[in-house]
Amino acid sequence: MKLYVWGVAPNPRRVLIFLAEKGLKVETEDAGTPNEPTLKAEFLQSGPHRRVPLLVLDDGTQICEAMAICRYFETLHPEPPLMGRDALEKATIEMWERIAENDGMQAVAEFFRNGRKAFTGRSLSGMPGTLEQIPGLIERGKQRLGWFYEKLDRQLADHEFLAGKRYSVADITALCVFDFAKRVGAEAPATLSHLARWHAAVSARPSSKA
Amino acid sequence: MKLYVWGVAPNPRRVLIFLAEKGLKVETEDAGTPNEPTLKAEFLQSGPHRRVPLLVLDDGTQICEAMAICRYFETLHPEPPLMGRDALEKATIEMWERIAENDGMQAVAEFFRNGRKAFTGRSLSGMPGTLEQIPGLIERGKQRLGWFYEKLDRQLADHEFLAGKRYSVADITALCVFDFAKRVGAEAPATLSHLARWHAAVSARPSSKA
Repeated sequence: MKLYVWGVAPNPRRVLIFLAEKGLKVETEDAGTPNEPTLKAEFLQSGPHRRVPLLVLDDGTQICEAMAICRYFETLHPEPPLMGRDALEKATIEMWERIAENDGMQAVAEFFRNGRKAFTGRSLSGMPGTLEQIPGLIERGKQRLGWFYEKLDRQLADHEFLAGKRYSVADITALCVFDFAKRVGAEAPATLSHLARWHAAVSARPSSKA
Repeated sequence: MKLYVWGVAPNPRRVLIFLAEKGLKVETEDAGTPNEPTLKAEFLQSGPHRRVPLLVLDDGTQICEAMAICRYFETLHPEPPLMGRDALEKATIEMWERIAENDGMQAVAEFFRNGRKAFTGRSLSGMPGTLEQIPGLIERGKQRLGWFYEKLDRQLADHEFLAGKRYSVADITALCVFDFAKRVGAEAPATLSHLARWHAAVSARPSSKA
C-alpha cells in the first residue's frame, strides 16, 4: 500500500501523526508538483477524489478522507485506541474530531485558500473545475477560527485532552489545524492558556514531528 | 435520553433515519422556535454546541454532530451494521459519508443560508456571533452541489449503494442532502440516471419517512 501526502499540507499530516502514534510504517509519496502549489497532473487523474491524503491499497483500491484512512488502520490495529473504546468515548471523540474538522480545518482553509494568488481558481481542494476565490471568506475564516480556538480553550479548561482523559484523533486534527494556522498567519491568541497548555503537551509527543 | 431535532432540517434527519433503520425509539424534541427560522434561546444557551441534532443523555452529557450520535448507537446496537463490518468496509463507508457531508451537505447549506433573508447574519449554523451572508456562496454552493451529484452518479453506475453492496450511513447523509436540496431549489438533474435509480431505492425504505 502507499499513502499519498503533500508537503506540509495539514490533512495528510493527520494520518501521519496517527500512524506514528500506532507505531505503523506505511510507504508514502509526495503527490505535489515540485516548486509549484499544485498536485501532480497524473495524481489528479488517477481517481475521482483529487485530494490528499489518499491511501492506495495493493489491489488499487483508493481511500481518501483522512479520518476514513485512520478508521482503516484503527480497525486493523486497535492498540492504542485513538478513536475510542466504548460507545460514549467513541461518540465524544467523533464529536470533537468533527468539530475540529468543520469549525477548525475548514475555517483555516477558507482563510488560506481565498487569500493566496497561488490558489486563484482553486478556492476549495478536490474540485474538478474552477472555483474562484471569494475575498469575504478570508475574514470569515479568521473569525470562525477565533471562535474555534475559544471553544477549544473552554473545553480544555477542565479536560486534559479534547475528548477527555485520553489522547485521541480529535487532538490530532486540532493540532494540525493549530500548527497550519500558525504557519499561514492565523495563530491562536497566546492568552488562551488552556489551549496553550494542551498544545505544549501534544507537541511534546514524538508523533507531532510527523 | 432525548434527541433534539428541528423541523425539516437535514442534519437531525440523518439521525432519525439511522434510528429507524436500527429499529430504535428515542424521545425527540423540536428545538425550533414556533413560526420562526431560529432555534429556541434556551436551547442555544443550554451548552456550547448551539446545533441540532443534539443528543442529551440521562446524566446531562451532550453529544452533537450527527455522525457522533450515530456512532454512539452503532456501538450500543451493532445490528444491522450501518457503519461497516471490517476495516475496508468501515473506511469506505466513512469516506463516502464524509464526501456527502463535506461536498454535499455543506454545499447545499452554503447555497441555502446565504440566499435567504431569514438567515441574515447567520450564514453558518452553530456560531456564537454574527456571520454575514456572502452572496458569492449561493452560486458556489450550487456549482459544488452539481459536481457532487455527478460524482455520486459515477459511483452509483457500478455500485448498488454509495459504499458498495450494502446500505449504509453514507446513503443516509446523501439522501438527506438530495431531499433538502430539492426542497430549497437545487435539485439534482434527472439526467443522472444512476443517482435517480439509487434515490428511488433508498426512498422506498420505510426509514426514509423519518
